Amino acid sequence: MYELNLIGIGTGNPDHVTFQGAKAIREADLILIPHKGEDKADLAGLREEIIRQVTETAPRIAYFDIPKRRSDDGYLQGVDDWHDAIALRWQQAIAAHPQAKQVALLIWGDPSLYDSSLRIASRLDPRPETRVIPGITALQALTAAHAIPINDIGAPYVVTTGRRIRDEGWPGNAGKVAVMLDGECSFQSLEMADYDIWWGAYVGMKEEILIHGRLVEVAAEILAKRACARAEHGWIMDIYLLKKRGN
Amino acid sequence: MYELNLIGIGTGNPDHVTFQGAKAIREADLILIPHKGEDKADLAGLREEIIRQVTETAPRIAYFDIPKRRSDDGYLQGVDDWHDAIALRWQQAIAAHPQAKQVALLIWGDPSLYDSSLRIASRLDPRPETRVIPGITALQALTAAHAIPINDIGAPYVVTTGRRIRDEGWPGNAGKVAVMLDGECSFQSLEMADYDIWWGAYVGMKEEILIHGRLVEVAAEILAKRACARAEHGWIMDIYLLKKRGN
Ligand SMILES: C[S@@+](CC[C@H](N)C(=O)[O-])C[C@H]1O[C@@H](n2cnc3c(N)ncnc32)[C@H](O)[C@@H]1O
Ligand SMILES: C[S@@+](CC[C@H](N)C(=O)[O-])C[C@H]1O[C@@H](n2cnc3c(N)ncnc32)[C@H](O)[C@@H]1O
Repeated sequence: MYELNLIGIGTGNPDHVTFQGAKAIREADLILIPHKGEDKADLAGLREEIIRQVTETAPRIAYFDIPKRRSDDGYLQGVDDWHDAIALRWQQAIAAHPQAKQVALLIWGDPSLYDSSLRIASRLDPRPETRVIPGITALQALTAAHAIPINDIGAPYVVTTGRRIRDEGWPGNAGKVAVMLDGECSFQSLEMADYDIWWGAYVGMKEEILIHGRLVEVAAEILAKRACARAEHGWIMDIYLLKKRGN
Repeated sequence: MYELNLIGIGTGNPDHVTFQGAKAIREADLILIPHKGEDKADLAGLREEIIRQVTETAPRIAYFDIPKRRSDDGYLQGVDDWHDAIALRWQQAIAAHPQAKQVALLIWGDPSLYDSSLRIASRLDPRPETRVIPGITALQALTAAHAIPINDIGAPYVVTTGRRIRDEGWPGNAGKVAVMLDGECSFQSLEMADYDIWWGAYVGMKEEILIHGRLVEVAAEILAKRACARAEHGWIMDIYLLKKRGN
């Protein structure tokens, strides 16, 4: 039986890798890497770059395909089914290397944050011991790039998704809210005069774009730069922190 | 003029340090380190251990005293005054090394999270360029140790303090809440039958203690182990994630 290592690698800057992550990569007998998709090629390349950076000897790599989630034809295949399908691919890739004792996956950011690897791992049968190695999240890359704290002194903050902002609005009486997984600049659904924003795309990467200011004043600039960068690179990942004004 | 580097070093495990953090430590001409307090000696020692781990040549270290916050005599000296006083100590320590171009501070966890260094830095006069290097937070160390995600699928979460839980109760309709800065096991002020808890003390360190389960069933164990460990080590840091049951 093998042990499964979910290794957080940070969010695009290979120097986000921790010493603990580098050790775990070196100790892995087998590293599972998703096949390059068509559009996000840069992200797949990063994993190989990180492996080269931390180890002299080339570890065994097994590539697997990420099954498509059928959402484009109007039919939203359940997340559960999708996780089942991915678990099956992992299982097949691992079964092809029965000698491997330490199997690793390199997880974007931190494995705890809006990531499904832990849920997929729990579907493996038999279920391996699973070790999680924390990594720098996109949220930390964002606050570092802007050189800002995420919380006001002694105050709470909320982390949520673009969809929730669109569907449910500003969460209760929150002072600061971080938004991830937002394909649609959902801040536009808020009363924009009431907020300040710290926005970033490709944070920590060479393509990094940062914008901050009163939301109502910078929203158009964010929309334009985002559309333009997305067209240029063929993909985009962005994240932002909102603060209610007068809080 | 110098540049100020706030380097996140993670939360007690020297291997939490990132490659980016290690580089910044090596490139620093001057590292400011707070004098060991009487009780939290272990934490001060960690900074020196990390420096030794990442650099061969001994960098210049300047120790500074953290002024006491007068809260014990019933008078809560303003956080603002306290930050002013610390900024003055930094300024004096830096002024004694006028050749230093890269000045660094090693920040527990991540500089963005419940940490005052960015606010202190903004008080320096003249104000240096400030660069933030993200580090593994206690929250990530906790979720990694328990091998759990912090969020439910596509769902938000709240990060707050023990005081807020005591004063304001459970935040709105949150499903998951992470609690930091809690000296008093404030989860006791909640309706304990309604929650699950993932608790950790000294997370990522050799003294690590982890407990999870139904809050109502494990609360007594947490209180007992916490009191015992605190008495044994002379200090404690703990953190936990709560999930509302049936959510
Ligand atoms: C599926 S989640 C994974 C988050 C990851 N586990 C982490 O710890 O950051 C993907 C979301 O993270 C954010 N994200 C990840 N990397 C990013 C980057 N380099 N720049 C901006 N946003 C990023 C975006 O909001 C994106 O929609
Ligand atoms: C002043 S805050 C600093 C947080 C830090 N900047 C971070 O990113 O984790 C201190 C609080 O962090 C938590 N904490 C920090 N290190 C910890 C550890 N090793 N184990 C458990 N809790 C920890 C505790 O809740 C503690 O009260």
